[in-house]
Amino acid sequence: MARPFDEELKTIRGKLMKMACLAEESIVLAVKSLKDRKEKLAKDVLKKEEAINLLDIEIDELCLKLLARRQPMAIDLRFITSAMKITSELERIGDQAVNIAERSLELLKLPLLKPLIDIPRMADLAQNMVKDSINAFVNRDGKLAINVCERDDQVDKLNDQILRELLTYMMQDPTTIRRAVDLILVGRHLERIADHATNIGEDVYYLAKGKTIKHHIEKNRK
Amino acid sequence: MARPFDEELKTIRGKLMKMACLAEESIVLAVKSLKDRKEKLAKDVLKKEEAINLLDIEIDELCLKLLARRQPMAIDLRFITSAMKITSELERIGDQAVNIAERSLELLKLPLLKPLIDIPRMADLAQNMVKDSINAFVNRDGKLAINVCERDDQVDKLNDQILRELLTYMMQDPTTIRRAVDLILVGRHLERIADHATNIGEDVYYLAKGKTIKHHIEKNRK
Repeated sequence: MARPFDEELKTIRGKLMKMACLAEESIVLAVKSLKDRKEKLAKDVLKKEEAINLLDIEIDELCLKLLARRQPMAIDLRFITSAMKITSELERIGDQAVNIAERSLELLKLPLLKPLIDIPRMADLAQNMVKDSINAFVNRDGKLAINVCERDDQVDKLNDQILRELLTYMMQDPTTIRRAVDLILVGRHLERIADHATNIGEDVYYLAKGKTIKHHIEKNRK
Repeated sequence: MARPFDEELKTIRGKLMKMACLAEESIVLAVKSLKDRKEKLAKDVLKKEEAINLLDIEIDELCLKLLARRQPMAIDLRFITSAMKITSELERIGDQAVNIAERSLELLKLPLLKPLIDIPRMADLAQNMVKDSINAFVNRDGKLAINVCERDDQVDKLNDQILRELLTYMMQDPTTIRRAVDLILVGRHLERIADHATNIGEDVYYLAKGKTIKHHIEKNRK
């Protein structure tokens, strides 16, 4: 049976999915600009940022209106407060993609340090975490939400590996320092993206299951 | 006139202030451990993390209960949704302090690179932004909230300066690379803390004034 504000919840869900798509595209473009050394792709990321930011404001306002007008209970209330948290996370994922694009524009001024392999792999992992966290939200899929959170470790490990490799480069050849530091920071940005996807996964788990996996708190409280 | 759930709002406010204090103390301890080379202080930060995380969960649950039971309108609704956003920001500030403490523990294994001056200055700025953002929240002070956001630039500039200085160190003496990279990452963590305080400032401005300064969107919408 359709309830009075199902239509409004559907609008919020649609806008969140659109926002997630833009955020994912930004990650892909930013890392592609770095890998293929294409300035235009980095500039495309900067253009997408405004659309992401506008959706953030829109979704927030829609949620607040819905809370005020409809005074939703239980699962709908949780849906709306989750949506408000998720939109913040997506906005920050967009910010991190912008940071990567800015690093890419800096790196394009200098010769290529080395062909990039691990950073694009890390970007793939992070992007898929974002995609799956939103799929988990849309389908209230607690299992997929946990799975997203579990993948965070892989990204962290890859980031450590990238850091170690770049330290070796710098020590062997100090002319690589500036570029290596930029790449280390790109690694950190991707790690943050994975963290934000993990936060979404935690919110979705709470939405789907009504209990928290944040901070492994169930364990600590016992 | 006291209204039915003023008491509950007061509880939320008190818990947020406690959480903010813990987050501030964590920043101070983490940077002091780095500056004074004291392992114990870094370990104290790790202990505080659990208290911060528990408060995050508690505040979130209190807010959800209040939304469900009391169905608040207008300003109270905005207060509660702001509190939910602010608790997420404080939790992440705590995470960043933990990251700094972890870097400090790594750096303590190696000889001192140089006496730290700019990083403690940056930490001061960031910590004061956190403190003032919460003061602005408690007093619904839109002017102080904007002032916090404006200070973000100072932190960013100091971070750029630290980065440039450390790059010079590394280029002159490759044996400093490992430590310099750790200090660059500490700078990034402090920059993130200032970003989270800025996010709180933006939320508080919305709470106090009913309009957003996020993403300079008022300007963009015109």
